Amino acid sequence: MQLNEHYRNLEESYLFTRIGRLVAAYGQEHPEAEIIRLGIGDVTRPLVPAVVEALHRAVAEMGDAATFRGYGDEQGYGFLREAIAGYYQGKGVSLDPDEIFVSDGAKSDLGNILDLFGTDNVVAIPNPVYPVYLDTNIMAGRKVVFLEANEENDFLPMPGKMQADIIYLCSPNNPTGAVYTRSQLEQWVAYALDHGSVILFDAAYEAFITDPDLPSSIYQIPGAKSCAIEFCSLSKTAGFTGTRCGYTVVPAELIREGVSLRKWWLRRQTTKFNGVSYIVQRGAEAVFSPTGQEQIQESLKVYRENARILRTALEKQGVACWGGIHSPYIWLKCPDGMDSWQYFDALLHRCQLVGTPGCGFGSCGEGYFRLTAFNTIENTRRAVERLENFYK
Amino acid sequence: MQLNEHYRNLEESYLFTRIGRLVAAYGQEHPEAEIIRLGIGDVTRPLVPAVVEALHRAVAEMGDAATFRGYGDEQGYGFLREAIAGYYQGKGVSLDPDEIFVSDGAKSDLGNILDLFGTDNVVAIPNPVYPVYLDTNIMAGRKVVFLEANEENDFLPMPGKMQADIIYLCSPNNPTGAVYTRSQLEQWVAYALDHGSVILFDAAYEAFITDPDLPSSIYQIPGAKSCAIEFCSLSKTAGFTGTRCGYTVVPAELIREGVSLRKWWLRRQTTKFNGVSYIVQRGAEAVFSPTGQEQIQESLKVYRENARILRTALEKQGVACWGGIHSPYIWLKCPDGMDSWQYFDALLHRCQLVGTPGCGFGSCGEGYFRLTAFNTIENTRRAVERLENFYK
Repeated sequence: MQLNEHYRNLEESYLFTRIGRLVAAYGQEHPEAEIIRLGIGDVTRPLVPAVVEALHRAVAEMGDAATFRGYGDEQGYGFLREAIAGYYQGKGVSLDPDEIFVSDGAKSDLGNILDLFGTDNVVAIPNPVYPVYLDTNIMAGRKVVFLEANEENDFLPMPGKMQADIIYLCSPNNPTGAVYTRSQLEQWVAYALDHGSVILFDAAYEAFITDPDLPSSIYQIPGAKSCAIEFCSLSKTAGFTGTRCGYTVVPAELIREGVSLRKWWLRRQTTKFNGVSYIVQRGAEAVFSPTGQEQIQESLKVYRENARILRTALEKQGVACWGGIHSPYIWLKCPDGMDSWQYFDALLHRCQLVGTPGCGFGSCGEGYFRLTAFNTIENTRRAVERLENFYK
Repeated sequence: MQLNEHYRNLEESYLFTRIGRLVAAYGQEHPEAEIIRLGIGDVTRPLVPAVVEALHRAVAEMGDAATFRGYGDEQGYGFLREAIAGYYQGKGVSLDPDEIFVSDGAKSDLGNILDLFGTDNVVAIPNPVYPVYLDTNIMAGRKVVFLEANEENDFLPMPGKMQADIIYLCSPNNPTGAVYTRSQLEQWVAYALDHGSVILFDAAYEAFITDPDLPSSIYQIPGAKSCAIEFCSLSKTAGFTGTRCGYTVVPAELIREGVSLRKWWLRRQTTKFNGVSYIVQRGAEAVFSPTGQEQIQESLKVYRENARILRTALEKQGVACWGGIHSPYIWLKCPDGMDSWQYFDALLHRCQLVGTPGCGFGSCGEGYFRLTAFNTIENTRRAVERLENFYK
């Protein structure tokens, strides 16, 4: 019996698990403390009425023999894949529903997609970034090179002299909130086409982009369909963090070594996945209806306003910060040479505020910190008051 | 860029995809045909009222800011893991809720669990069996040895002289309906303890066992917690094939190479999975309530009666068959030396009946055929009439 020895190379504890433990310990010592969480990127606004209605309807169908549904298409119901294709059409991107795969969330697909690739590939991962990209590759023993994001490049690393076979890009970025411009993504697509690489493009925060000149899908860049897989999620777009639905696009044009990656991903999903709950897929479909789109904009507007409030307050205190526009994340520099965990402790103990230490997203995040706009507007305002006191 | 070359060793088409294609083609040529499906193991009875009510309640909670839930525990909500632990308690098995992992279904976990193991292990897989065990191991390039199930061993292979590091067992078996006795499972546990192997025990059909002397969990066998992972699902138990919820048990006692597999599986799930929909978990919880348990027995009773009707009719025609007791599957020998696909075609074209060719579950299934008890009682009776005509 041999284990997958690569697991031994993982860091002991997942970032948010550690934060949860520290906050729980603080809460036990200070039961009176009113902790405000601007840490994990979890939403607070409820599902919108159009989604709730669709979910109720689907539940009722499942309780009636005449309308009951058993196994669905592993790839997702046609009605949802068509709705997603329609959403892309609105961005000027034509997709065949066969290129769209419905899943229980981007996190699952971002991990599972690696099944298609050999372990000898070199993987390029931004630093700092969502830790899942790195951990899932450590689990498979792949060689990783980091794309350093820093103040000099506005936290938007560009291709350099390197051979990278698999390239993760996340735009709008988690944690820095940085958004690639069209011309920057054109350079990444050109690199991938030149080098035969595959870009894994995480668009989980695309709904926060309000400037139509900024790409919200990599497929808005010519040539991207031949070199990129796009991951998206309804978690932040429509408050689905607890309802669970996302989607992945693998274009038919994406061929490597004579293989259609779309076909292989279909094979992976039909073998190791049984599709998303019918009920949830009906809820997701409602997100893409005209009413659903209108209603989710109300929630997105609140989060955008929270981001604006946080960023404005920090800038007023002279804090260097990024993101918070086209993104629910504000990325800021820790004060007085503090490292990320020191600042985490300071905010927790002095302000009862929970944020996320930048170093948890990679070594280049050390000395930085992430705040999120997902709390209520009331709590965000209270958080801002506490931050103003902190910086006094 | 290198692909995972092992994918090239997969057979072209997944069994049920091929069946679906053939049936669709027949239906297009014969639009008037009333096809009865006793093929894919999909249920037909709706979710029971207790589950439907719980789902509605959870949907309403998700639409209200005061009760909305975002990210849950990747491992599953405590309320559901405790309910599952209570269910095991009823079988005389004590589990800590930390040993229980809620998932979107047994198929996902059966594939994903392999992430924990090295690729050099020898994997023992029954033949015939649920094709997913083999395909997921081909994808990883593991060496597979087959445990031949045949008429001589009543389709219940026992350990022989072999070194197997990972052993799949499925009881009640898919496709043969065979159920291991306590003493047979004791031999498998003894083998695994002797050889340091890990048994992957698929208990998806445990709810069909009515004889209390037959084990419905491998943990009813002393020592099993040190050598077995158990996979279970609400798909067949409670009609969740389209609702999606299952669970996997990784006991704390299961240690290999100094590693707690429970901890590694937790690490895998927290990194590559974000938990099951809160709504679905509330529905699953209701399955384990006293009312839910009573209501699902009504459905199970119907399926058991269907199985009895099918098996009795076949036996009356002198057809050699297995299963159909403690199992929703009837496994039968094809007549007149027909191979499995010939019999599939004959049943489809002459009786408009869809079953599953035994060879689709492995070479030892050639010449056999699987019928399922999951259709309505009316359709099962009509199917029996057609079968009687076929055999006349």
